[in-house]
Amino acid sequence: MSVAVLAGGVGAARLLKGLVEVVEPARLTVVANVADDIVLHGLHISPDIDTVVYTLAGAIDPERGWGLAGETWQAMEGLRRYGGVDWFNLGDRDLATHLFRTQRLSEGASLAEVTAEIVAAWGLDLRVLPVTEDPLRTMVTVVDEGEIGFQEYFVRRRHDVAVRSVRIDGAERARPAPGVLEAIDGADRLVIAPSNPIVSIGPLLAVPGVREAVVARRDDTVAVSPIIAGAALKGPADRMLAELGHEASVVGIASLYAEIAGTLVIDEADADKAAAVEELGMRCLVRPTVMSRPGVTVSLARAVLGLEG
Amino acid sequence: MSVAVLAGGVGAARLLKGLVEVVEPARLTVVANVADDIVLHGLHISPDIDTVVYTLAGAIDPERGWGLAGETWQAMEGLRRYGGVDWFNLGDRDLATHLFRTQRLSEGASLAEVTAEIVAAWGLDLRVLPVTEDPLRTMVTVVDEGEIGFQEYFVRRRHDVAVRSVRIDGAERARPAPGVLEAIDGADRLVIAPSNPIVSIGPLLAVPGVREAVVARRDDTVAVSPIIAGAALKGPADRMLAELGHEASVVGIASLYAEIAGTLVIDEADADKAAAVEELGMRCLVRPTVMSRPGVTVSLARAVLGLEG
Repeated sequence: MSVAVLAGGVGAARLLKGLVEVVEPARLTVVANVADDIVLHGLHISPDIDTVVYTLAGAIDPERGWGLAGETWQAMEGLRRYGGVDWFNLGDRDLATHLFRTQRLSEGASLAEVTAEIVAAWGLDLRVLPVTEDPLRTMVTVVDEGEIGFQEYFVRRRHDVAVRSVRIDGAERARPAPGVLEAIDGADRLVIAPSNPIVSIGPLLAVPGVREAVVARRDDTVAVSPIIAGAALKGPADRMLAELGHEASVVGIASLYAEIAGTLVIDEADADKAAAVEELGMRCLVRPTVMSRPGVTVSLARAVLGLEG
Repeated sequence: MSVAVLAGGVGAARLLKGLVEVVEPARLTVVANVADDIVLHGLHISPDIDTVVYTLAGAIDPERGWGLAGETWQAMEGLRRYGGVDWFNLGDRDLATHLFRTQRLSEGASLAEVTAEIVAAWGLDLRVLPVTEDPLRTMVTVVDEGEIGFQEYFVRRRHDVAVRSVRIDGAERARPAPGVLEAIDGADRLVIAPSNPIVSIGPLLAVPGVREAVVARRDDTVAVSPIIAGAALKGPADRMLAELGHEASVVGIASLYAEIAGTLVIDEADADKAAAVEELGMRCLVRPTVMSRPGVTVSLARAVLGLEG
């Protein structure tokens, strides 16, 4: 079975950990969000791609949920001595990834090429495609401060500020990266990972051609709700949904995804909302989805791919 | 007494260690070579400026002669895993300097501004001016490989390849950085550090206006020979001089500097060549100049400034 996954960061990475257990990694394509990429200190940083890669490589720091386990922080400490920009933490080992990516891009490699090189260097067999190689940036308008970059909202402000609107800068002119539409068209199953629908999945769908390609595969598309019992396990998805006028619930997720996905997987904690989800025209699967619990990652992956029982 | 020093890397840094002992650091201006700067991994690296700063701050690694003492190498090790460009070693703590410089430049700070910020962050009182803020790059034509960047010659090829010619790319259009000509004009004494005359001092003199300004101060200008008994203490100056048709001796140095400096300080090992130096129209001082020996750094600084006895 070939599978394509629309992916953000942490939630997607966890589901992918399960998916690579139940499908051959070589038949798995990740369409990765790059709208939260940031250029800082001259370095091109792709947080979502790195979280996916580090997680699948078993190298992610399990406590923080980002960056590498066993990390050291000499460069950041030095940066603080200079009074440099220090709100975006970069470990010494993690820096290697950004140094390598930036150097390869400066040599003329495409973002897809350098991503493939990074994936291979970690010994992974799956394919990770940036959704686009064109500039795509999530911009967040927050109260008081106006429009700021996504990482300024997410990291610098610790997503602890009300969001008025989200704009995906560059979306009109962005083209899907080579292989993205083919992966969506050709997969036996398309998965929308339990990532933030606004700022992780939203940018993927904002790239012209991607949403249409996903809609065309609606019957084979399964989304996993990132909202469980009204809350996001991690990150600001619940709050952001409410602030932008959506319902912070599996029903709100279903409203957002009904056009593009035939099936929504919701957590057992939301079993009472399955009927409301189905009323929106989606098939609803009720399963354990909290992947920090033993066994859930793989069982969820099997459910998503219709491989249960 | 106010002093301006035309400076390269290691040799200049050592002499400066002595100069700050005998003149008030606030009255000392370093005109620094930036033609061996390199952009690598997206980072703006200024090796000569950093060597001067780290040395004066007492933070230089004394064994290697470059980079920081007590350095760690996590980022480089990570880079090697990726098969990244790894011939230019960047320690984790050293990386902070390049991250800071690059970020500040991207924010619109000038190279002079960010250099001043770095100098201040290390608690130093002297002024370090890049000779120019315009692009200036030493290019080296070597046998077999053609023209390569200075760091490719110096670090990657370990300066172990014959040099056919040296070109200072960008020199015609480069303008002296703010304060450079004023420092040269206004100093009570102008010092040409014991740096490579071709690739360290040469680029400074190649910036239009600088050579003329130095020539106008010839009587107050003292150069220290980087060649002792026909050899450079460090680096390829001896070999490069010979390969480019100069004499690899204090007499060769005198030929190169006779127009711009009234006085040449040579080592006691070259006492027999003092007459030949003076025949070229320079005053010649014979002194101990090997600054790794106890007491020599400060006594040499005093000799250079005419403060002996």
